[in-house]
Amino acid sequence: MAGPAPGLALTVRVPGSSANLGPGFDAVGLALGVYDEYEVEVLPRPGLVVRLEGEGRRRLPANEKHLVAAQLRAGLEARGIGWLDGYGLRLTCRNTLPMAAGMGSSAAGIVAGRALAAGLTAPDALTPPDGLGASELDRINGEAAAVEGHPDNTSASVHGGLTLSWADREGGTCTVRPSLHPEVTAVVLRPVAESVSTAAARAALGPCVPRADAVEQATRSALLLHALTADPGLLWEATADRLHQEARRSVYPVSMAAVDVLREAGHAGAVSGAGPTVLCLTTADRVSEVLALAEQWPAEWDVRAPGIDTQGLEVTIRER
Amino acid sequence: MAGPAPGLALTVRVPGSSANLGPGFDAVGLALGVYDEYEVEVLPRPGLVVRLEGEGRRRLPANEKHLVAAQLRAGLEARGIGWLDGYGLRLTCRNTLPMAAGMGSSAAGIVAGRALAAGLTAPDALTPPDGLGASELDRINGEAAAVEGHPDNTSASVHGGLTLSWADREGGTCTVRPSLHPEVTAVVLRPVAESVSTAAARAALGPCVPRADAVEQATRSALLLHALTADPGLLWEATADRLHQEARRSVYPVSMAAVDVLREAGHAGAVSGAGPTVLCLTTADRVSEVLALAEQWPAEWDVRAPGIDTQGLEVTIRER
Repeated sequence: MAGPAPGLALTVRVPGSSANLGPGFDAVGLALGVYDEYEVEVLPRPGLVVRLEGEGRRRLPANEKHLVAAQLRAGLEARGIGWLDGYGLRLTCRNTLPMAAGMGSSAAGIVAGRALAAGLTAPDALTPPDGLGASELDRINGEAAAVEGHPDNTSASVHGGLTLSWADREGGTCTVRPSLHPEVTAVVLRPVAESVSTAAARAALGPCVPRADAVEQATRSALLLHALTADPGLLWEATADRLHQEARRSVYPVSMAAVDVLREAGHAGAVSGAGPTVLCLTTADRVSEVLALAEQWPAEWDVRAPGIDTQGLEVTIRER
Repeated sequence: MAGPAPGLALTVRVPGSSANLGPGFDAVGLALGVYDEYEVEVLPRPGLVVRLEGEGRRRLPANEKHLVAAQLRAGLEARGIGWLDGYGLRLTCRNTLPMAAGMGSSAAGIVAGRALAAGLTAPDALTPPDGLGASELDRINGEAAAVEGHPDNTSASVHGGLTLSWADREGGTCTVRPSLHPEVTAVVLRPVAESVSTAAARAALGPCVPRADAVEQATRSALLLHALTADPGLLWEATADRLHQEARRSVYPVSMAAVDVLREAGHAGAVSGAGPTVLCLTTADRVSEVLALAEQWPAEWDVRAPGIDTQGLEVTIRER
């Protein structure tokens, strides 16, 4: 297939996300109103230019090894377009999501790269407001989950809102988007000096669990869906986890201490993804209470009430 | 407290139920439109008369050892009324629920006994249509779950409809009643020659499970809530179980064979409670398809489409 035409320029905006929400391990995601934005412009001569702005500006590689560039390449090749074959690309990254924080920045990057690839492949199919059609979103949803290894964050970044994902018999990713109760919102609390090794977090989870914990987790997971869609007053009960957070306490002790404080005060705290960010699910009328509680904490915490993103990824044409 | 007044007569009607629904093990219940009915009349002289009609007529003890009589006694004593202390009782049992079949007959019996006790204790508080107030229903819900050992069937018999129950920090039983999607209904298929030892069914479940199964179960359990309340098209995906059915296959091989046949045909089959009854969750437009499929089965099956009970227990005054 012919490469994209020089002069074409696309922008993609992708929300960050929180995964797990307590008992919804590796399955439930919630898109947050915090965004990374990427612009790609097609150049007449082969070559890649990567510009970095915002988060990760000094840490990330400004070349083909950049996550979004690599996913853009994989996405183009999966769609039959040779990488920089007769054309060049300028990729500009405007990141606000903190990296490796448990707010879905890598999932957002994977989704962004794949979405830009889809847009460059078929720019004429882009339609407002979100750009890509349903089948292309499904494709990106599956591609991104396969790259990330679990669909929780990626599905939220693709679709926005509350997502629940599972694997079908062929290993494909299926996602539904239950209607979030309109009063539910989120506070995210990030201990800025902390970092978590994803490998250590995964290694902390042994191969087997007590049956009673598994049964309890399935119960709470069903309750999580109920609380998020129909009865936010049950969020505290619904975010109790038995499978991953305690097992990982030594991996993110500061986060777990904060979860404990929130929960003891009656707030639905949970570790966001593999941490170190903490998620507090709450209702609009209790946000200020959560913020006031966090103000008393000693360490340096970045506390935000970003709201829930309901749009998911958006691809728009800047120039053609 | 003084005993009930001679001449008072109450009736309680309690629906049977299906528990688990696949991944909702020990937590999710669905009340079925099949009922047991009990009548109790207060006699002037101490003594207990038990009359048995319908199911279990020849098998059950017509005395204080009858489950409903025993629960009526425990319920009265818990409410401060001495058993047959200056009064007598005639208990008439009209059962249609098959016993030890996985359709919640024992849970219904426990609920019935406790509900009659509540009604005898405070007959003036009984108000149409369901008789008991919310706080008394909560009390019965907790009492019955404690007796039964798990709240799934008992909560459905108390409240009707779809129930999700869990234990709070003090071990009390909490139940919510998510709004079942109006198109969802049930077919129950009972292999009449089969029986299941509950002890063997419990013993088949080892103390630990693979973590991957526990994670998958929690995902499906959340999906079960979503499918039942919002998207019945996903019932097949949502009823996949990883924690109990396969482990118990040798305990109820005929039931599992039927579940396999249903699922291979695209129907959301699951073992009802600990079997041997099989539950098929479906939508009104597909009931005849399920019935036609079951007609081809070789063994003797009692197949019904009883509908969902939405009322739960009902206590009414017959005479005072």
